[in-house]
Amino acid sequence: MRVNPADDDRYMSLALRLAEKGRGTTSPNPMAGAVVVRRGRIVGRGFHLRPGLPHAEILALLEAGPLSEGADLYITLEPCCHTKKRTPPCVPAVLDSNLRRVIVATTDPNPLVDGKGVAALRRAGLPVTLGVKEREAQALNRTYSHWVTARRPYVILKAGMTLDGQIATSTGRSRWITGMPSRRDAHRLRTQVDAVLVGVGTVLKDDPSLIARTGPRLLAPADRQALRVVVDSTLRVPPGAHVLSEQETAKTLVATTTAASVSRRRALEQLGIEILILPSAEKQVSLPALLRALGHRGITSVLVEGGGEINASLLRGKLIDHVCLYVAPMLLGGADAMGLIGGRGPVRLASASGLRGMKIRSLGEDFLVEGDL
Amino acid sequence: MRVNPADDDRYMSLALRLAEKGRGTTSPNPMAGAVVVRRGRIVGRGFHLRPGLPHAEILALLEAGPLSEGADLYITLEPCCHTKKRTPPCVPAVLDSNLRRVIVATTDPNPLVDGKGVAALRRAGLPVTLGVKEREAQALNRTYSHWVTARRPYVILKAGMTLDGQIATSTGRSRWITGMPSRRDAHRLRTQVDAVLVGVGTVLKDDPSLIARTGPRLLAPADRQALRVVVDSTLRVPPGAHVLSEQETAKTLVATTTAASVSRRRALEQLGIEILILPSAEKQVSLPALLRALGHRGITSVLVEGGGEINASLLRGKLIDHVCLYVAPMLLGGADAMGLIGGRGPVRLASASGLRGMKIRSLGEDFLVEGDL
Repeated sequence: MRVNPADDDRYMSLALRLAEKGRGTTSPNPMAGAVVVRRGRIVGRGFHLRPGLPHAEILALLEAGPLSEGADLYITLEPCCHTKKRTPPCVPAVLDSNLRRVIVATTDPNPLVDGKGVAALRRAGLPVTLGVKEREAQALNRTYSHWVTARRPYVILKAGMTLDGQIATSTGRSRWITGMPSRRDAHRLRTQVDAVLVGVGTVLKDDPSLIARTGPRLLAPADRQALRVVVDSTLRVPPGAHVLSEQETAKTLVATTTAASVSRRRALEQLGIEILILPSAEKQVSLPALLRALGHRGITSVLVEGGGEINASLLRGKLIDHVCLYVAPMLLGGADAMGLIGGRGPVRLASASGLRGMKIRSLGEDFLVEGDL
Repeated sequence: MRVNPADDDRYMSLALRLAEKGRGTTSPNPMAGAVVVRRGRIVGRGFHLRPGLPHAEILALLEAGPLSEGADLYITLEPCCHTKKRTPPCVPAVLDSNLRRVIVATTDPNPLVDGKGVAALRRAGLPVTLGVKEREAQALNRTYSHWVTARRPYVILKAGMTLDGQIATSTGRSRWITGMPSRRDAHRLRTQVDAVLVGVGTVLKDDPSLIARTGPRLLAPADRQALRVVVDSTLRVPPGAHVLSEQETAKTLVATTTAASVSRRRALEQLGIEILILPSAEKQVSLPALLRALGHRGITSVLVEGGGEINASLLRGKLIDHVCLYVAPMLLGGADAMGLIGGRGPVRLASASGLRGMKIRSLGEDFLVEGDL
């Protein structure tokens, strides 16, 4: 069997591009793409679009039909072998296709799979090449990998701030620190996560809707709007808040504690708002408990949109995985202004949280700083 | 007379590169470079090195000697025509050189010159082309232009800070937020200004020497070390502070008010420290008065190295011309940490200070943000 590594790279790149088409809709499933190649000709293509629909390799093999005999199958993620889920496992279908070889970018970090799909193919005598474009394939499903192994969503801290790190003036004014290109990009971020989270302080101050759009136009179809999550230990969120409106476009979940009154809870439930009662920590909703609960219901990623106190609690709890900071070219100043991270800071510099892989790019007059924590 | 604009640009670029060699030593004079070209051959070159030494065009014409006859003189700044200074005016020397043409990048913003040099050459019948590489020539002497027109130094705010805008922890720890490449670059900045300024709070907290060096090695010769300025309304600076040591390397000026005790003042003067008594504003040294006093003694540029209160006073007074922020990839957090700009912040976002011409570049793991206010 002749194998050309350059061909393998090329076909796997195509499979990765196909996988990318599922961004924002496959959750809580991983993105995946597949290509069937027979004698140098692409005879099948597939990608996973959303939960309940067939996996990438099934679609690619369907398109190839009888041409899969003696062909090579490129898949960005090993085929699944576990049952107890909506779709049947893919390993049997792959084995039934009389393939010559399977090329897999990376294994599935899901503990239920974790190499078992590749092992099953090999056990059945089908040659498998593992690790082609592995890094790219793993980067593609960073969010999913985090969720499936840590059992809590990947947390992205997003903020628009001044160059001196302020997200609002001393009286809470924050509209608008950043320019239109930054705000548009932040709306795009909302379409790529499963949930958007704010503290009730931000609701009371800014009254955001948290819906992904620019102007009146929606940026994402209603079934792809992120779940809106409000952290509100005593249910201070006013029933008329924007974050509670448009439930037909995006659902809202209010996370609270037993300190909230039953009457307030009833009033919100009558609006169709889901109330989640969680343990408290220092009279606030326990954020680790909230993230575990969100992870349990299939929320793989959360975009945190402030304010300073929620940011501080998450940072202190080492619960932030990634930051997206839109930095405007202005100095606001003032020890009384609202900083990106509130609360009590560490005494020692060694306790600061370092960012890895920091990247910076221009966005209009602002710049976007991203990095992993 | 045939003139080739591409040649003009090329020779003026050379003159600008020559002028650059005076960076850090010409103050309070402007940098200037000159080239004499005869029949396509460079026959003279010069630049201004330091006050009291000949100007660029004089040196270039000296090198050219009799070859200046019929030649073209390229100068980055119009020749001076005013007297009452250490060196004689250059216009007569230029007129005596039998040149064919003079090409000038820009006029001298000094109100005593301000086009009069060019006018004098033209009046004498010598053809002058004005404005070749004008923007570059003006950028070269931004500091000088500011000082000679505003009568106060060009103020650069420099700080090392975390991504969330903190310059120290709640207990004042700031060593080291930024990495070695940033700190080295900040020392280089010190060699390019006439004075480095801190508040006494920074002296008491960090005890910096404010001398330009890396480790024990000086980055600049003693005669090019910036004047060290401490703003200290009641003379709290301890006689053993590093900022007062090594007077043979760099002089220190302590700016204070009449609220300081005479005994403290005497003690400092006995160490060879100059004390400048200035009007006060809200019990602090009046910073506009300090900058005027520094400008009066030929200080064309000041690098402000914090802390937050001095920065806030300067920002509120619209006295900052440029910022150099070394940003480290870390989040410190804490409403109690020390932010870049302390004091009371504005209530409205519209009162924030916008940065123009913001530039960002990587420095090791940090990044440097620069801009004009």
